[in-house]
Amino acid sequence: MDYPSRLIENAVNQIAKLPGIGKKTALRLALHLIRDKEENTVALTEALNNLRAKIKFCATCHNISDDDVCSICNSHKRDKAILCVVEDAKDVMAIENTAQYNGVYHVLGGVISPMNGVGPADLKIESLVNRLGDKQSAIKEVILALSPTMEGDTTAFYINRRIKDLSLKVSVIARGIPVGGDLEYADEITLGRSIIGRTLFT
Amino acid sequence: MDYPSRLIENAVNQIAKLPGIGKKTALRLALHLIRDKEENTVALTEALNNLRAKIKFCATCHNISDDDVCSICNSHKRDKAILCVVEDAKDVMAIENTAQYNGVYHVLGGVISPMNGVGPADLKIESLVNRLGDKQSAIKEVILALSPTMEGDTTAFYINRRIKDLSLKVSVIARGIPVGGDLEYADEITLGRSIIGRTLFT
Repeated sequence: MDYPSRLIENAVNQIAKLPGIGKKTALRLALHLIRDKEENTVALTEALNNLRAKIKFCATCHNISDDDVCSICNSHKRDKAILCVVEDAKDVMAIENTAQYNGVYHVLGGVISPMNGVGPADLKIESLVNRLGDKQSAIKEVILALSPTMEGDTTAFYINRRIKDLSLKVSVIARGIPVGGDLEYADEITLGRSIIGRTLFT
Repeated sequence: MDYPSRLIENAVNQIAKLPGIGKKTALRLALHLIRDKEENTVALTEALNNLRAKIKFCATCHNISDDDVCSICNSHKRDKAILCVVEDAKDVMAIENTAQYNGVYHVLGGVISPMNGVGPADLKIESLVNRLGDKQSAIKEVILALSPTMEGDTTAFYINRRIKDLSLKVSVIARGIPVGGDLEYADEITLGRSIIGRTLFT
């Protein structure tokens, strides 16, 4: 594609580096910014620069935070005996939105994925093991809330092996038919797991 | 949605103002920027700021340009006798990509749309009329290449009325079945127009 301006071309190339945004969408966004008020572009770029420059990660759980320790780790209302291990900050938000969990978190920052060159040392696993092994730790149960993919399962397996001597209760989130889902369209593995993992009818 | 950080929340709100991007996508992009190298965010925001601050519009055709007059208007290879009227810069790029047109352009910057409060005075129609009415003008034919929508047709009708005394050849782009399209799935209006606008078999 020939662009009428180097400024447009440069902007399109930069926008198209974002995940899930191609050149066509990038061009649409660039042309939108040109037509839109200048202060909107300034507000957008300031928000992005501030985000990247000032964002902090909680020293305890590695979740995104405005302060050195995040509001969840700092809260007196949270149950410090349960720890939920998740892949990233999006998962913390998703679980918080369910309002079904009152413990604390540990954000790994990814999952083990040899295909993408991500090994255990690239994740916050050492920090997790230290946190759980700490004699002052109040943690009694660890919930491994990782995606049921090859990478997620590998990571869960690896973590379980690293912490199995600590005599903690280790659980994984239930796999089964999604609420509102249709048995007919569920794959065999999911359906099989939902039968193995059946719970008492209440 | 509760965000773990005001920086994230602010960035998500700003990104979600872009057309076609919701809060979920905005969050995904914000989290990507946090994980990505800082220089990538700097390059992105610089490109956007430069785009918005330095972009120029051609004084003749109002297309996006790096200079006061765009490369198409400035070119000696273009046929100055044919003028193609389009809605925006994206349309110029699309027509240029066909390599079927060697004339010059006039970018209206939108179409007449009373629903969105866009009237003729908000577009570069006066500039078009002046350009065509100029005694030094070499233009012999005007192609109205507007989208075949209610707004596009209204705009074409309005422009035609404004310039009909200038004894120019005025044409519109052909409406018909898209190449690769299927007769069976074409709507009646398109199919009807494709019969009325039939051309000799060559």
